[in-house]
Amino acid sequence: MRRCDVQETSGLNLSQLDATEEFGILLLRAAAVRPSSYDLRDQLSGRVWPLVRRVEPGGSGTLTVDHDRHSFHAPAACASHEPPAGCRVLQHAFRRYQALFFPHHADVESLSLLQEDMIHALNSSLRRLRKHRADDRQQGRLISTASATDVEVKDLAAPLDLGVNESYELAVSIQGQMTVSAQTVWGALRGLETLSQLVEYNFTAESYAIHEIPFRIQDSPSFPHRGLLVDSARHFLPPIRLKRTIEAMSFAKLNVLHWHLTEDESFSMPSSSHPELAEKGAWSADERYTIRDVQDVVEFAQLHGVRVVPEFDMPGHVSSWSKSHPELFEQACLERSRRLAFKPTKDVFDFLQGLLAEWTTSTFHDQFLHLGSDEVPFECWKGLSISEGGKTYSTPTQLFQHFVKNMFSRAHGQLNRSVIFWDEAFVSARAELPAEAVIQVWRDKATLSRAVQAGHRALLSWGWYLDHLDEDWRGMYDNDPVAEVPEDKKEKVLGGEGCMWGETVDGSDQAPTMWPRLAAIAERLWSSPASSSAAAESRLNAFRCLLLRRGVAAAPTQVSGRRAPIGPGSCEQPGGPGLAA
Amino acid sequence: MRRCDVQETSGLNLSQLDATEEFGILLLRAAAVRPSSYDLRDQLSGRVWPLVRRVEPGGSGTLTVDHDRHSFHAPAACASHEPPAGCRVLQHAFRRYQALFFPHHADVESLSLLQEDMIHALNSSLRRLRKHRADDRQQGRLISTASATDVEVKDLAAPLDLGVNESYELAVSIQGQMTVSAQTVWGALRGLETLSQLVEYNFTAESYAIHEIPFRIQDSPSFPHRGLLVDSARHFLPPIRLKRTIEAMSFAKLNVLHWHLTEDESFSMPSSSHPELAEKGAWSADERYTIRDVQDVVEFAQLHGVRVVPEFDMPGHVSSWSKSHPELFEQACLERSRRLAFKPTKDVFDFLQGLLAEWTTSTFHDQFLHLGSDEVPFECWKGLSISEGGKTYSTPTQLFQHFVKNMFSRAHGQLNRSVIFWDEAFVSARAELPAEAVIQVWRDKATLSRAVQAGHRALLSWGWYLDHLDEDWRGMYDNDPVAEVPEDKKEKVLGGEGCMWGETVDGSDQAPTMWPRLAAIAERLWSSPASSSAAAESRLNAFRCLLLRRGVAAAPTQVSGRRAPIGPGSCEQPGGPGLAA
Repeated sequence: MRRCDVQETSGLNLSQLDATEEFGILLLRAAAVRPSSYDLRDQLSGRVWPLVRRVEPGGSGTLTVDHDRHSFHAPAACASHEPPAGCRVLQHAFRRYQALFFPHHADVESLSLLQEDMIHALNSSLRRLRKHRADDRQQGRLISTASATDVEVKDLAAPLDLGVNESYELAVSIQGQMTVSAQTVWGALRGLETLSQLVEYNFTAESYAIHEIPFRIQDSPSFPHRGLLVDSARHFLPPIRLKRTIEAMSFAKLNVLHWHLTEDESFSMPSSSHPELAEKGAWSADERYTIRDVQDVVEFAQLHGVRVVPEFDMPGHVSSWSKSHPELFEQACLERSRRLAFKPTKDVFDFLQGLLAEWTTSTFHDQFLHLGSDEVPFECWKGLSISEGGKTYSTPTQLFQHFVKNMFSRAHGQLNRSVIFWDEAFVSARAELPAEAVIQVWRDKATLSRAVQAGHRALLSWGWYLDHLDEDWRGMYDNDPVAEVPEDKKEKVLGGEGCMWGETVDGSDQAPTMWPRLAAIAERLWSSPASSSAAAESRLNAFRCLLLRRGVAAAPTQVSGRRAPIGPGSCEQPGGPGLAA
Repeated sequence: MRRCDVQETSGLNLSQLDATEEFGILLLRAAAVRPSSYDLRDQLSGRVWPLVRRVEPGGSGTLTVDHDRHSFHAPAACASHEPPAGCRVLQHAFRRYQALFFPHHADVESLSLLQEDMIHALNSSLRRLRKHRADDRQQGRLISTASATDVEVKDLAAPLDLGVNESYELAVSIQGQMTVSAQTVWGALRGLETLSQLVEYNFTAESYAIHEIPFRIQDSPSFPHRGLLVDSARHFLPPIRLKRTIEAMSFAKLNVLHWHLTEDESFSMPSSSHPELAEKGAWSADERYTIRDVQDVVEFAQLHGVRVVPEFDMPGHVSSWSKSHPELFEQACLERSRRLAFKPTKDVFDFLQGLLAEWTTSTFHDQFLHLGSDEVPFECWKGLSISEGGKTYSTPTQLFQHFVKNMFSRAHGQLNRSVIFWDEAFVSARAELPAEAVIQVWRDKATLSRAVQAGHRALLSWGWYLDHLDEDWRGMYDNDPVAEVPEDKKEKVLGGEGCMWGETVDGSDQAPTMWPRLAAIAERLWSSPASSSAAAESRLNAFRCLLLRRGVAAAPTQVSGRRAPIGPGSCEQPGGPGLAA
């Protein structure tokens, strides 16, 4: 039994932690467990998106955080000669969160030209700070000053895998000690994000503060797989767009980027063994990735606590492969069909396995691999009959089952990957589908229930299609993945994914189409709130403001897809006008 | 007579430069001069947006640019103990352009976790590069390799003011020397931008190259004021959004951010002498700037060669001031009017002068200051009569003239600023308006002609309102500021500005509403192309791709405002689908 390594923090009794020491992998997988004690009326937890699991005790003091002197303290092991792998993750996170804690003081370096004015401004700032604190003392409020965030991590080497312990404890003492304690660096990242949302800038005092100290937050996710599908094939997404998306995901504690890479329209994934695939299959010469681009995105995601699960959709959605490899298709299919499907033969399986072996070695290190299997154009297989291993497959269903079974066994057995399929593999190829296959459900929630009852682990995407521009965040917020799942099967629901299919978006409008609806999904998956969207609206408005301040182009909450902001109303007061009467 | 300090570059005879040595300040101000020799059929100049003025000779060689070894060489003076101010601008630019030259190799540091794979990839890259170059040799093409960009600047101290010399020469020799020569660092920035657009990545060779060497580009802007108005008052724009806008402006060689800061709706500009203005007048507590935020934006802009001209709109569009300073208004106006106008009295002028003195000292260092004067709600002054200095002002026109005259003389005479007004100041207060006032024209082009014939310098914004969502880039491209201006007055037209008024946009959709239409305006102002938008479409599509690759959310060129991309068409081939037949 692992537990968080939480230090005694003077002024706060942390012995209650024993009662909840098991949050972590067990709780993570038990989606049925509801948060026990948060309260939307609680001002403190109400300021964090997604909602944290537990807050106590919530005092009335204020902690000033000194932006000039603040630093992050890594665990002692990070000072060793050969620091564990997680230290690098923390080091990058410290750099990011220093800027996110103190957004009005992020670019010190760039101010040297204006040094003289700055000195003036700093002096004036100090004067006002002193006055403000004198006012507070007169009014009897508790004021401490903090200049460090201590980060304690028990296991600095835990890899970022499905179900890794993402729990953390965030304690702010009456003396001003700020401590993030976590089992893994991935939990520490979540704790730093929470803390960053609690640091507030006071324009009058010109300083940063945390309110309602002392307090202790214990938090952990309800579902281990909290994802976003992006589709770089319907419209190409340059690496910088993917990175900005990943950064925004980390603000909402999402942890899986499902990267839908290949499609009928375009093949932009590079291969060193088969460069012709992208050379001929990409929509245009420049709209594809280099191996280094992909590695860089995966690495960037890792540093933000986001796994990258690649999807190579097959046997349908593969027309772009035919540009360089027509031999993967029946001649009759090439001649007859607008959308193609791979020929389900051993040669094709061998070719695909070779490619997957390359990609899972060179670029995609995650345990999971998505092999699509949705919307196979069966007309492409009309009249086709395949005989292999003494068996003959001649109906579309038989051919599909044959494909799914073989590619599963190669990806799972040979390449040692856990395989995710779209729900067609369950609905149409169930007879040949091993229970280890994970089913991503888009068609309805009943299929999610059936899949987990058949022994599969499953992901919900029904209700979370972000390309449905008329669906607003409320429905997405209220879409509980386990609402219709039998109690004893709830742990089979790993979580879900918002799906930002690429037909209607490209780099110009992807962000406001995703956000803030993706934030609603993120809270559903992290917090499993017992309350509905009605209780979340003002908090979501505030989170949208945070996203805007951090450079994420999140649309107004009043609209679903892409429309102009309504009236002069701005993010924090969606209501009335700001005009003088 | 100043001239560019251009070194002899072996392999290229640069003596022709003498013939054009006067490009610079004189040409800058002479908007009537058309580019002499660019040709849209010219492949080289066709790859740069906005069009460059002159290209010669355009060989057929290819220069490989070694991304691993490439560095920028600053002028020798930058190595001195106390380098001139411009060296810091270059130093920042070198960092940015290293990433922009080599976008697929921008994040070396983040790759250490994947080191082993990288070594593999690099080896494979080297093998392919060798093969590619062997192929080239067989085919008799010229291949050189470059590993440095030399930047020569004559005057490293020239401040970024209206009309500063932004000309540059970019020479790439047959031996692979890349040289940007400019009179000022601001010209060097434009040259680096041009060069960055000519470095192309070859996915097959996995290397960067510049084609059609040797060549020499001579370039300079047609108009010295190439601006964008942003409106952070109708909807708040966080500093990061302003910075990303400034960065994108630099890609299009725009050089003025006109920052519309105060409005009826909100007062987000900080003042150390009057903090109550923003404390009470901001739309919400967090939707305002700190002094440091503003300084940081101004500094960021400076490093990108972008001047910041603040607008404090008055005497109308000032309702938000009344929240903290009702004494600036007639009581009758406060009671009667929805939109307010300042009382045109000496007390008010004194108060405003004090504020402007603070702001132009602490934050806004540009020579220019914009004092609005548009759309004054005259109903606010109904029945008002002011007597000052022995004169009585009682009609709205008299009161408006009195306001404009006084505020001009304070800003110009006392604060030593050049003052810009909206065209109302010319149309309605002409009798009292000194010729030194610059007129920004929004109502029609005839007013632009009238203003310059009356002796004013002027800016065009008519036709360039980016909040007109149904107007597409073509009309903006074809909107020539000097088309209807008499020949001898053309130099009075300083340029113009795209206006991104804030009613319909906020941080979520500002970028795709501006871009790519703002790029069309940028080319009109930099290049004064003799050709129309019809000849620019494919080039604009390519520039839009560049913007997307650099993270700017530029909308498809086929639409005007914000709509979904059309069909599966992506940026480089807006036409047909990518599906197999």
